[in-house]
Amino acid sequence: MLIRPARAGDAVAIWSIIGPVIRAGETYALDCDLSEAKAIAYWMGADKETFVAEEDGRVLGTYYLRPNQAGGGRHVANCGYMTHADARGRGLARSMAEHSLDHARARGFRAMQFNFVVSSNDRALRLWQSLGFDVVATLPLAFEHPVIGFVDAFVMFRSL
Amino acid sequence: MLIRPARAGDAVAIWSIIGPVIRAGETYALDCDLSEAKAIAYWMGADKETFVAEEDGRVLGTYYLRPNQAGGGRHVANCGYMTHADARGRGLARSMAEHSLDHARARGFRAMQFNFVVSSNDRALRLWQSLGFDVVATLPLAFEHPVIGFVDAFVMFRSL
Repeated sequence: MLIRPARAGDAVAIWSIIGPVIRAGETYALDCDLSEAKAIAYWMGADKETFVAEEDGRVLGTYYLRPNQAGGGRHVANCGYMTHADARGRGLARSMAEHSLDHARARGFRAMQFNFVVSSNDRALRLWQSLGFDVVATLPLAFEHPVIGFVDAFVMFRSL
Repeated sequence: MLIRPARAGDAVAIWSIIGPVIRAGETYALDCDLSEAKAIAYWMGADKETFVAEEDGRVLGTYYLRPNQAGGGRHVANCGYMTHADARGRGLARSMAEHSLDHARARGFRAMQFNFVVSSNDRALRLWQSLGFDVVATLPLAFEHPVIGFVDAFVMFRSL
């Protein structure tokens, strides 16, 4: 698997990954009817570095890295990761997360924060914990899951 | 004191409040060299409802209210408040905060969250606690204060 910076020409492949995740509305606090153009503008925005994970030339995962805050908070990174439904359970998310931690260190970030990990997203929660992230806050009933209703969300943090 | 929705014509007065706070860089995670145009676009952006507090016709405080997240997180509000240096210590921030809690309830928000309260900002911390906000997370050394260096930041939350 190769993880490399995304190019403009990856937009269609990236949409094929992030579109279904956004439409499902179960794991990211994004409007589930977000248009393709707006979703791509968000995911590949100028405020972010966007990467793709490809296998045999096919883009199967993508992540972005950005400062979580501006000004005095710009030394803490924030990332979002999504994997194509065809490639789940094969370690892509872990590989992207490890890549992002290395890249964030290389960029001089001192910590990484996830602002909103939906508590029902067991797989993500376990992955982040295994990579050294702590749950530093529980936001009570902060996410309305389209199937199971209101659930907690977590803030997760680790130093780099 | 009157708290009312901001109008386009309030931009100069709002900048006279938020400009010095942004330039100081001690309490908000915003770039301290943010241009006036960008600062106004941020504070009065289409994603926000912006209010001003005026006394004898002079705008002395301002706050914004917005959903803290999109999608399944849109029922939690977020606000930012700033008071003119000339009017500190006279209860303006408390009045704006109370107004914002009422307004958020009226808008149907179920909770309010502050994502990044700088731990050295004692006055804000005491005010939010007196208004029922809990510190739900300590973000270790997440803010670089221009005078005292790296300090913690807090995530604060209360139900409505």
